[in-house]
Amino acid sequence: MKGNVIVGQSGGPTAAINSSLAGVYRTARDRGANKVYGMLHGVKGLMEEKYIDLSEHIKSDLDVELLKRTPAAYLGSCRYKLPDIHQDMSTYEKIFEILNKLDIETFIYIGGNDSMDTIKKLSDYSLLTGSEIKFIGCPKTIDNDLALTDHTPGYGSAAKYIGTSVKEIIRDSYCLEYDKGVVTIVEIMGRNAGWLTGASILAKGEDCVGPDLIYLPEVVFDLNKFKEKVIKLLEKQPSVVVAVSEGIHTSDGKYVCELGSSVDFVDAFGHKQLTGTASYLCSFIAGELGCKTRAIELSTLQRSGSHLASRVDILEAYQVGGAAVLAADEGDTGKMVTLVRHSDDPYQCGTEVKDVHKIANDEKLVPREWISKDGSYVTNEFITYVRPLIQGDVSPIMVDGIPRHLFRPVERK
Amino acid sequence: MKGNVIVGQSGGPTAAINSSLAGVYRTARDRGANKVYGMLHGVKGLMEEKYIDLSEHIKSDLDVELLKRTPAAYLGSCRYKLPDIHQDMSTYEKIFEILNKLDIETFIYIGGNDSMDTIKKLSDYSLLTGSEIKFIGCPKTIDNDLALTDHTPGYGSAAKYIGTSVKEIIRDSYCLEYDKGVVTIVEIMGRNAGWLTGASILAKGEDCVGPDLIYLPEVVFDLNKFKEKVIKLLEKQPSVVVAVSEGIHTSDGKYVCELGSSVDFVDAFGHKQLTGTASYLCSFIAGELGCKTRAIELSTLQRSGSHLASRVDILEAYQVGGAAVLAADEGDTGKMVTLVRHSDDPYQCGTEVKDVHKIANDEKLVPREWISKDGSYVTNEFITYVRPLIQGDVSPIMVDGIPRHLFRPVERK
Repeated sequence: MKGNVIVGQSGGPTAAINSSLAGVYRTARDRGANKVYGMLHGVKGLMEEKYIDLSEHIKSDLDVELLKRTPAAYLGSCRYKLPDIHQDMSTYEKIFEILNKLDIETFIYIGGNDSMDTIKKLSDYSLLTGSEIKFIGCPKTIDNDLALTDHTPGYGSAAKYIGTSVKEIIRDSYCLEYDKGVVTIVEIMGRNAGWLTGASILAKGEDCVGPDLIYLPEVVFDLNKFKEKVIKLLEKQPSVVVAVSEGIHTSDGKYVCELGSSVDFVDAFGHKQLTGTASYLCSFIAGELGCKTRAIELSTLQRSGSHLASRVDILEAYQVGGAAVLAADEGDTGKMVTLVRHSDDPYQCGTEVKDVHKIANDEKLVPREWISKDGSYVTNEFITYVRPLIQGDVSPIMVDGIPRHLFRPVERK
Repeated sequence: MKGNVIVGQSGGPTAAINSSLAGVYRTARDRGANKVYGMLHGVKGLMEEKYIDLSEHIKSDLDVELLKRTPAAYLGSCRYKLPDIHQDMSTYEKIFEILNKLDIETFIYIGGNDSMDTIKKLSDYSLLTGSEIKFIGCPKTIDNDLALTDHTPGYGSAAKYIGTSVKEIIRDSYCLEYDKGVVTIVEIMGRNAGWLTGASILAKGEDCVGPDLIYLPEVVFDLNKFKEKVIKLLEKQPSVVVAVSEGIHTSDGKYVCELGSSVDFVDAFGHKQLTGTASYLCSFIAGELGCKTRAIELSTLQRSGSHLASRVDILEAYQVGGAAVLAADEGDTGKMVTLVRHSDDPYQCGTEVKDVHKIANDEKLVPREWISKDGSYVTNEFITYVRPLIQGDVSPIMVDGIPRHLFRPVERK
């Protein structure tokens, strides 16, 4: 590599996004990049010329290992949508001025759907203006909803956290007995795609019954059918555990969480912030059946639980970071690295690069046939898909009883 | 030992209560007990003659290791308060009839304050009637509020889970920037005692700022002072993370979670079920400051997160189970095993037995001097106390990517 590399992180945090950062850094250094910069808080920070020299932060092999075990975005993240090129050239001129000043040859952006939109626009602008900077996207999202890739780094670790936590919740739920039974509803992230909620099935095994009902946002949710299912289950068992996606909605398109309260917060991409689905369903069930209920939101824990990361996930995230640098160095631009599964058992998976225009803003949902007919469970195909992605552990580096992370002091005002 | 042993689990689940069960079982077998029975769902199940022969469940050394790593109560638990002896002799006659039928010599009850009340009453009745059955209590509670013992098995693992999770939440909270900042409020269990909430301080270290504010139920909570603190913090940093106990209350004795909604569920001991403290405070802060907020309840995850158990805790829980059997075999009754700390560094701790009459229904709170003057943080004394209790790991036995537990098939109706 001749020039410099700049890398940014964008969108929601995951347990694996820093492993991709480590992969970018290491591969860029190995391939002779002069400087590897990290933009702080993605393109938003870059536009304010906020960036760091990563070699001042990652000083040893131990730092690389710590970075792989550090949840959330080491560089800080953003949810910033670039304007359309024809609408606002000045934004692009500004970004390219900064990139040129830093002698950037390769621009890597680690993120999800919205971030691939950024890669698409920047690479388009680059081609329009004859810039030689290469723009490559590196997939990241716990939601696993990116098109064209078998799965997305970050998903496997979240799935492992969800499977383990739901199993522990089930164990807990059978402990105390209540006259009319107890219904526990676990709310899992996923606005439109049920990949995370489906992963609750991983709790099931020889030693655990698993969740009794699993509701994904791909299928319309029916409150009354749900109630009937719960009634039938409570007739034969003392505890019922239900996994629901935060994004489940009724036939009129209304989110279940909106049935109970008004939700106003909307982010820069127009996404509503969803919360309270489990609470609403608990109130509903308690009101209808008079039984004890408990709502549990896995909240940000499920995306930042790096103490329980999947080894497959963390290694793939690292590998994908390296593949992004390699692709740029070989002349690719406007591409995203994808994971291609060659085999389920033994699990084999490699990387390719695909045109980012085919990926940006497209959402990959759980296939309807991987969800049971009545929409209240997932099928064996789903399990076969997710199981290899949670294999192996990345043992935390414990210091005084708590996992150690790589620390970037936060800018104080 | 001549006769048989029966052991029960009572009160809320923890990650360590099964390790005490393993300790009871092993020590009883080692000391020659003929049968070791487990009552299902504590004395409540025992009164319905629901019990199992533990040797049919724990068949190998591997099973013992699995049991130590299985969260919640393997035998099932209950919250059952025995009537006063003079009010209802028949309950006691019934229990003793069952115990005599099973040729029980030793009765071990693993639980918290309410469970020690059970041991007290049963041993009192035993002495009154000249029975030779020995009754010993084995301490267990994540709340760490039992009197006379330095700490309680279950607390260390919960503290480790809380410290680790709060650290991951802090990492996550600094990821995305919001115009007016973001305030994350983490709700932690503890009705009257702040031991668990205080453990959030463990997130703090060379690599993490730790929670910004920590509110324990031992100190009156002032909404306006809280708001002022948050405003000041947001002036200098983009993210504020606050740890609050579910039991914090205002000067008029009202729980904060009651300020927003009505709470009706009350258990057999008259305890209100508390939930919604973080939600209420988030609404309050969002309303007052207009900033982004996020409420996170650690809920049952904090008490059943055995994948992140503390080695010190799990080993002490095991040891305490064994000590209970030993005490009974040496003739003690009406006693509870306690942990006695000899030294903080190096950490040294042993067991003793103490009169259960001095323990039952008494709550050990965090000393006022271990909480900062203004009631918004804990002191170094608190850290010195808790730090040794979270040391070391009990690596989960992973099967296909998920921790394996010892499984007791649940009674289907």
